[in-house]
Amino acid sequence: MTVNSYFLKIDTNKNFEIIDITSRINELIDVEEGIISIFSRHSTSAIVVNENESGLLRDMEFTLDNLIDDKYTYDHDRIDDNARSHLKSFLLSSSECLPIRNGRLDLGTWQSVFFIELDGPRHNRTISLTIIGE
Amino acid sequence: MTVNSYFLKIDTNKNFEIIDITSRINELIDVEEGIISIFSRHSTSAIVVNENESGLLRDMEFTLDNLIDDKYTYDHDRIDDNARSHLKSFLLSSSECLPIRNGRLDLGTWQSVFFIELDGPRHNRTISLTIIGE
Amino acid sequence: MTVNSYFLKIDTNKNFEIIDITSRINELIDVEEGIISIFSRHSTSAIVVNENESGLLRDMEFTLDNLIDDKYTYDHDRIDDNARSHLKSFLLSSSECLPIRNGRLDLGTWQSVFFIELDGPRHNRTISLTIIGE
Repeated sequence: MTVNSYFLKIDTNKNFEIIDITSRINELIDVEEGIISIFSRHSTSAIVVNENESGLLRDMEFTLDNLIDDKYTYDHDRIDDNARSHLKSFLLSSSECLPIRNGRLDLGTWQSVFFIELDGPRHNRTISLTIIGE
Repeated sequence: MTVNSYFLKIDTNKNFEIIDITSRINELIDVEEGIISIFSRHSTSAIVVNENESGLLRDMEFTLDNLIDDKYTYDHDRIDDNARSHLKSFLLSSSECLPIRNGRLDLGTWQSVFFIELDGPRHNRTISLTIIGE
Repeated sequence: MTVNSYFLKIDTNKNFEIIDITSRINELIDVEEGIISIFSRHSTSAIVVNENESGLLRDMEFTLDNLIDDKYTYDHDRIDDNARSHLKSFLLSSSECLPIRNGRLDLGTWQSVFFIELDGPRHNRTISLTIIGE
């Protein structure tokens, strides 16, 4: 049994952006069987698993904008004008812990792992990967 | 320390269904102390932990229907008529990573682990379980 | 590689309360590199990672109250008058699985780990911590 850690670095280009990181994660996996913690070190982003279909990705953006409505006044905006970005991250999550089998993420046919930028564009977003297995 | 993987197979009978999988998971646990990754290999389902009370399960269905409202048009429905199922899964999560103690899930008195079917009925839904511990 | 388990006990003082548990978790970490499962053994509470800024914490409370609206009637309230507390927990999550590096939680600069009380005040809320690493 081993534990290994990696950082994945990402530059984002838009305020809201969904980036498929599945293949970049698979390239780093160094065990046959185990689990991987995928954690974004930023509180205005999220890690999620879902289907990579362009219409659905637009629906995700619409859903978040709708649930965290810009018709309200948010207190955090007095400090830093990105309260809605934090609140979208709060509703989703900054991490996923996923299974590894046969040396790869054990995803279903229609699943991808996404990094969601909620307050871009940003340079050097960092995703922490920790792999435990054998 | 060992790592072991299992699949749990589930047939669902309704479009929306909440299934308590706590005892099926406990039967497979093969270590005294550790963690278990519980991951649904489908992006129109979810894994959650909460209380198994029939009124509350109906409230969960109502809440999801309310937050992902059918009064909107979703782009993914042009490809596959299940955008709202994906978006409910997106708001919840397809995984939980939970503690094991004394050879069982270390849940509180009022907690169960649920598989939530969001786009059923389906045959052979697969939940991937990965157990690390000793 | 070792596995170790701990309980963190918390008394809460208000119906809704966000408590930063980052330093209490760091004090218990006993490995250099690994992962930690942080799990609340209560289904009317949540574990989340975000920024510890007082305005943002008020925005989180507002967001949850807004999404789980008290204008509706909830079935679980016939049994126990806390349906909205359960549903807020359902939307967030009772657990996080996070990376450990250099003997500490590997968080970003603006991240803290929070226990969110959704149905307080309560005595002896229990958070289960399970650490695997070396």
